[in-house]
Amino acid sequence: MTPLRNDTLLRALLCEPTDYTPIWLMRQAGRYLPEYNATRARAGSFLALAKSPALATEVTLQPLERFALDAAILFSDILTVPDAMGLGLSFTAGEGPRFERPLRDEAAIRALAAPDPGAELRYVLDAVREIRRALDGRVPLIGFSGSPYTLACYMVEGSGSADWRTVKTMLYARPDLLRRILEVNTRAVTDYLNAQIEAGAQAVMIFDTWGGSLGHRAYEQFSLAYMREVVAGLTKVNEGRRIPSIIFTKGGGQWLEAIASSGCDAVGLDWTTDAGQARRRVGDRVALQGNLDPLALFAPPDSVREEARRVLEGFGTAPGHVFNLGHGIAQQTPVESVAALVDEVLTYSKRMRQS
Amino acid sequence: MTPLRNDTLLRALLCEPTDYTPIWLMRQAGRYLPEYNATRARAGSFLALAKSPALATEVTLQPLERFALDAAILFSDILTVPDAMGLGLSFTAGEGPRFERPLRDEAAIRALAAPDPGAELRYVLDAVREIRRALDGRVPLIGFSGSPYTLACYMVEGSGSADWRTVKTMLYARPDLLRRILEVNTRAVTDYLNAQIEAGAQAVMIFDTWGGSLGHRAYEQFSLAYMREVVAGLTKVNEGRRIPSIIFTKGGGQWLEAIASSGCDAVGLDWTTDAGQARRRVGDRVALQGNLDPLALFAPPDSVREEARRVLEGFGTAPGHVFNLGHGIAQQTPVESVAALVDEVLTYSKRMRQS
Repeated sequence: MTPLRNDTLLRALLCEPTDYTPIWLMRQAGRYLPEYNATRARAGSFLALAKSPALATEVTLQPLERFALDAAILFSDILTVPDAMGLGLSFTAGEGPRFERPLRDEAAIRALAAPDPGAELRYVLDAVREIRRALDGRVPLIGFSGSPYTLACYMVEGSGSADWRTVKTMLYARPDLLRRILEVNTRAVTDYLNAQIEAGAQAVMIFDTWGGSLGHRAYEQFSLAYMREVVAGLTKVNEGRRIPSIIFTKGGGQWLEAIASSGCDAVGLDWTTDAGQARRRVGDRVALQGNLDPLALFAPPDSVREEARRVLEGFGTAPGHVFNLGHGIAQQTPVESVAALVDEVLTYSKRMRQS
Repeated sequence: MTPLRNDTLLRALLCEPTDYTPIWLMRQAGRYLPEYNATRARAGSFLALAKSPALATEVTLQPLERFALDAAILFSDILTVPDAMGLGLSFTAGEGPRFERPLRDEAAIRALAAPDPGAELRYVLDAVREIRRALDGRVPLIGFSGSPYTLACYMVEGSGSADWRTVKTMLYARPDLLRRILEVNTRAVTDYLNAQIEAGAQAVMIFDTWGGSLGHRAYEQFSLAYMREVVAGLTKVNEGRRIPSIIFTKGGGQWLEAIASSGCDAVGLDWTTDAGQARRRVGDRVALQGNLDPLALFAPPDSVREEARRVLEGFGTAPGHVFNLGHGIAQQTPVESVAALVDEVLTYSKRMRQS
């Protein structure tokens, strides 16, 4: 493999000093980019795009052509794992993901098994390899997976939900069944992330999108405990470099200390958490990633720059900050806002280190 | 007025000692009750029900006939206020509230004015008076309003939203316009709550359902600052008794200290906040209200009782806890779960005080 020319992200994730604050954006390859929409139209559907290594590579690199981002993130979906378990994933226009065979009876839950990433998820690993070749050492590639609990949400509910009533009913009424699903998911996520690392992912992130819908105690028992197990099972070094791991629980700001003690290298923060307080709460135990409100990008470029400076100042200049949004970038985000943001983070974070 | 026979709620809200932990449930008069559905069917629509003082009284009292609750809460909707401002409220089946004339242009925003509660919201005050007569001193009546920011969310967006893009775009791009709306709303909410107090409400609650979608700094500036102003303007004593005020920001657990310093008597907590930690964070500055996960009621009665005991133990026996759910009760909640909950809170909280 070509040596990595820009390792700013990897160093920041390991709390090592960097010349500036690295930046990447959750969902940076996405519908706010006209070129993404063109490729998606060619693919025919979101799933066809995600399942084609060539097209996934194409869209993964698109934002890097426009903006000086410090990382690429694999273009894929968190639900490829339950899809590979045979639950039958589809995306309906405007309504989001849907599983044809959600986990509703005990027999189906007992029969659930972790997929072999090299077989059922081969297309993802092919994409990782192809993206690494295309990146050619430009910036590191981040691999990712949904968290065991977040995957279970969709697997039991069968789709998104405002209150996750079905999966939470299982949690309170039949915790044994939910635990069985989470154990399988933990195995599946660990294997999947390790396969991505082996294929070339240089950092990995666990998206716990729905852990924040749990009560504080249920979060610890049904989401964080399993993420801790995933992190413990991850390949720590590949190609002679440490592979940093990031945990992001949307709505998890109250549980920051617990997440920071999970064994991960970095914690993702959504926009509701005060950066300065977060830094004080976890000290230098972990790096922090975040946390501009994605909606702040709907303001004029000058306001975007101002909000970006505020986030940078909140985190301060101690090593261990990766700039990101507090959630995925929204579909209608103006491209010029993203350009202003990326430019401001680079120039202002350099200046902060000099003064 | 008949003297109040059960003032446990009012005393707990003021951090005075009580023999047991009082309980009421957000949305306790609602669709999980067959008798509510029957009354609503008779009314023809949700709005017709909310606008009829006689029917609103009927449904307000229904849960008290089934369960030993320590408060009644006015049956109404937070959106009656913008409706009275002329925005044209309607409810579409399955889709929630919608405004015919959302605030999208500067002229409409400049023309916005606080309604006169005695005129446009007369039906609410009539309901308060009729409920007080029907209660006849049994338990106190809680009045309520949406927070200035939460009302603005619906007024600008025109309906519910997953990310509140329109109102947050205004916040970041035209904060002056949003502030103008919030100033009018602050006047409107203060007048409305004071009119409810004058009509007989014995405690008031501000529902800040969407403040939790804001960044930490925006929350302070665009939601909490205005709620502080509302609280400062509230009538403090009526019928010779202190009128406690409660602020509930869903998703506001990270900002608990700031909310507790707003001047309110009690802070509502959703189910993501650890009760013991919350108590330590605010000490005896305010009472706390909450915070069972509403979905915990979908478990069998024994598990419901166990979860209820856990919440009670989390808050402890120091004065100043009102038991509630962490959010409104869900439509399909089994009635027997509510019965088990209310019974357990009474008996177990008594026992805790004895040991």
